[in-house]
Amino acid sequence: MLFSSEFLIRFSHCDPAGIVYFANFFDMINAVVEDWFSQALGTPFQSLHADRNVSFPVVSTQCEFSSPCRLGDKLALELSVAHLGQSSLTLTIRGRVAREEKLRARHTIAMISLDSYRAVAIPEDLRARIGAYVEEAPAPG
Amino acid sequence: MLFSSEFLIRFSHCDPAGIVYFANFFDMINAVVEDWFSQALGTPFQSLHADRNVSFPVVSTQCEFSSPCRLGDKLALELSVAHLGQSSLTLTIRGRVAREEKLRARHTIAMISLDSYRAVAIPEDLRARIGAYVEEAPAPG
Amino acid sequence: MLFSSEFLIRFSHCDPAGIVYFANFFDMINAVVEDWFSQALGTPFQSLHADRNVSFPVVSTQCEFSSPCRLGDKLALELSVAHLGQSSLTLTIRGRVAREEKLRARHTIAMISLDSYRAVAIPEDLRARIGAYVEEAPAPG
Amino acid sequence: MLFSSEFLIRFSHCDPAGIVYFANFFDMINAVVEDWFSQALGTPFQSLHADRNVSFPVVSTQCEFSSPCRLGDKLALELSVAHLGQSSLTLTIRGRVAREEKLRARHTIAMISLDSYRAVAIPEDLRARIGAYVEEAPAPG
Repeated sequence: MLFSSEFLIRFSHCDPAGIVYFANFFDMINAVVEDWFSQALGTPFQSLHADRNVSFPVVSTQCEFSSPCRLGDKLALELSVAHLGQSSLTLTIRGRVAREEKLRARHTIAMISLDSYRAVAIPEDLRARIGAYVEEAPAPG
Repeated sequence: MLFSSEFLIRFSHCDPAGIVYFANFFDMINAVVEDWFSQALGTPFQSLHADRNVSFPVVSTQCEFSSPCRLGDKLALELSVAHLGQSSLTLTIRGRVAREEKLRARHTIAMISLDSYRAVAIPEDLRARIGAYVEEAPAPG
Repeated sequence: MLFSSEFLIRFSHCDPAGIVYFANFFDMINAVVEDWFSQALGTPFQSLHADRNVSFPVVSTQCEFSSPCRLGDKLALELSVAHLGQSSLTLTIRGRVAREEKLRARHTIAMISLDSYRAVAIPEDLRARIGAYVEEAPAPG
Repeated sequence: MLFSSEFLIRFSHCDPAGIVYFANFFDMINAVVEDWFSQALGTPFQSLHADRNVSFPVVSTQCEFSSPCRLGDKLALELSVAHLGQSSLTLTIRGRVAREEKLRARHTIAMISLDSYRAVAIPEDLRARIGAYVEEAPAPG
């Protein structure tokens, strides 16, 4: 299953060359993860913090930018789960404007306790809902 | 040779968990590249744009975050050149607070014409100055 | 007439005190102005730049923050025109979450030529459409 | 007495018109206040939060932008205290590049408890140090 959010490219996202400043794409990547937790997994970030005392900081991220985005573009970011570990998950995020691919990211976050700032295991209820977005392995030949 | 800039971690860099929001690190990575062009390579971004009509957008970036940064930290970012291509260059950027490693990035930028938005060859004068920062290969066994 | 856009308060908007960092409200103020030009006035920023070679920089802004916003809040920004001058316009922007007022801004922008960076008169077609959002004077006693 | 910090205008501060995006000036205004607390008042924000459990959110701000700033500019922000109240203080902040005035702000912050999110009186030790930056009234005629 894929989760998707759309982002309007605004004036404030663009740089003197008239294209999106790359760091702003990471803000949108964070936003699609936030929307996924809130809209698809049923655990918005604020309840993760307040009710479970955990957070999901970024462990590593990697992004290829294949084509620039411009003011007024509508960037669709599609998210799926490439790997679900004990306390971490690696997401695949693809960005498209209409049919043109703009970026492809591999983004790893891990659940930590806000008391210890150490990794903790993702609880079963959340793990089950995340599982629905794990990418299927290609069928064997 | 290494180039280094120091960044003070400010209130505005930090998130509700009290640590630097990861997208802000990419802003600092862009800033150390900007400082390197301006202070070490002798071609500030504004002269690249105005005098040469070129820009250096990000082609791909990859970053591992090993330990969080907090308000008041002084983050030193050290830059060297892992690979110098025809029109692109891949930088290694390491971030430390005192002696503790905080992040390690591999950041690829490419020179494009602001007319065509296509890659163009890095001119010889600039290439020569970049060359001084290329990482030395480890000596053979 | 009022124009309104809604903004979801995201993790990246919030500071270590858990409330929206004030500078991010100005980004949302810019966004509601952008939406107004695009959705209500029929002249998105990109066509102002590309087709008319003008831009609308901020001349002055003033904002009172009456109550903090938090992660997950939906901030509605309502815009009306307090004053329409030759080349400038002063907007009133009110922000509410549900029925609670969060901020009130007075925001002045002016049309400039991107050639001269000087103020130019707002053309009649655009002026007419802006006119529909001018606040009515209170009826005399 | 005046307190001053200098800010290098970076690529990431600038918009498609090639000038600083206005919201980024508020980030610099916050930074000069942060530097003042840390370098002049002897109470960095992190110790306000951790040791005194207070914060200084923005109550209101007002800024006039008289001339645009561009990539490579060095913006000096000068701060003085226009009014020192029981729990709030109003700062005058002037921005110059070389001798040219770029902006002038009136920026009011108030001390709140991080428990109650309510205003609390500025303690005497801090009040005394702030006092040294209060603007002198003009001498009578």
